[in-house]
Amino acid sequence: MHRTKVRVVEDVLDANNTIARANRGDFDRHDVTVLNLMSAPGAGKTTLLEKALPGLEGVRAGVLEGDVAGSLDADRLAAVHVPVTQLNTDAGFGGECHLDANMVRSALPALPLADIDLLVIENVGNLVCPAEFRVGEDARAMVSSVTEGEDKPLKYPLMFRACELVIVNKIDLLEHLDFDMEKFDYHLDGVHPGVQRMLVSARTGEGLDEVREWLVRLASRTGAPA
Amino acid sequence: MHRTKVRVVEDVLDANNTIARANRGDFDRHDVTVLNLMSAPGAGKTTLLEKALPGLEGVRAGVLEGDVAGSLDADRLAAVHVPVTQLNTDAGFGGECHLDANMVRSALPALPLADIDLLVIENVGNLVCPAEFRVGEDARAMVSSVTEGEDKPLKYPLMFRACELVIVNKIDLLEHLDFDMEKFDYHLDGVHPGVQRMLVSARTGEGLDEVREWLVRLASRTGAPA
Repeated sequence: MHRTKVRVVEDVLDANNTIARANRGDFDRHDVTVLNLMSAPGAGKTTLLEKALPGLEGVRAGVLEGDVAGSLDADRLAAVHVPVTQLNTDAGFGGECHLDANMVRSALPALPLADIDLLVIENVGNLVCPAEFRVGEDARAMVSSVTEGEDKPLKYPLMFRACELVIVNKIDLLEHLDFDMEKFDYHLDGVHPGVQRMLVSARTGEGLDEVREWLVRLASRTGAPA
Repeated sequence: MHRTKVRVVEDVLDANNTIARANRGDFDRHDVTVLNLMSAPGAGKTTLLEKALPGLEGVRAGVLEGDVAGSLDADRLAAVHVPVTQLNTDAGFGGECHLDANMVRSALPALPLADIDLLVIENVGNLVCPAEFRVGEDARAMVSSVTEGEDKPLKYPLMFRACELVIVNKIDLLEHLDFDMEKFDYHLDGVHPGVQRMLVSARTGEGLDEVREWLVRLASRTGAPA
């Protein structure tokens, strides 16, 4: 039974990768760079995008907003004039805890690909399954809030390994927490040695310039291999 | 294809419920009350249990610690002399993002059921899938940290509906956040009208007496229907 389960999981991931490559072809045809942005619930992905995307130098950014239900985050991004498309996993996708390539494919017709250079896919808040499903992205980044504790890289190693950038958020709260940044760095290097990290407070704006520069550089490498 | 997917999901949940009833039978035979405790990653489940379980009046509590990987939380609980059994979903269960009845069943032989009155199953940190899988529990509670924002009941309605107690944690940080408790209550009542809630800081100990009393009352109703 265990072997059958492994086989089924492999088949699902194979099928997902095939659709992810098709998505990638469509993004490439429109010269759109795609970032898959992941985090636990409430880590601050939406606040980060609200603050960082409107100030991007020479890059037209759009967002595909993934949620189980509702359009709260999409509404927040629309309010700061970022083109945003809502994708709910409870609408025809069984309330899944992650986005997969097929869900993103279903949203392609609604995306303004001709009018943007960078598409940020804000994944469902979850530190497990989103890391397993490629959606056709060029890069993957995650937001880890210091309020979650410094042990998270050890508890969710696949997520921290899957990303090429770890944005450590809510550093304005550090003085009120027992969070030990050295320990976090040590754990992070244990699961993903040397991965790039940025310390930010999306709330106060601290560190956001570095995130914007990273996004601009990312957008300039359209067509690079995932 | 959509109909097939719904059918498969229903079959999986039916099979899960059958095993959950078997677990429940075993727990009942040992007069053990079971709480399924859920939250997002880093909301503070383990700190809450570290602080609340050693002081339980007349109730011998044990913990089944669910994690994708590692035994960090189990080690913390063992350090405060709470009997704890580790259950990792990456060991034979495909790194699942939740516990299910079959995983809990596999851990039964390792649980000291004859020596405890209350078993707290600390689920994998995730606000989506854990709510879908019964494991044989008497009750379900969740921890929601104020650092996650007041919109979470609207974004993860199934989780907030599935629980009979919502423990609002990290209230010692309220003065440093933009969190609006009235809005949170309003959203929570929108998805689960009148559900019991407790405001606590597992870190400072504020509000923990109320949690302990709730756990003692829960343990006294062994054998009540789920």
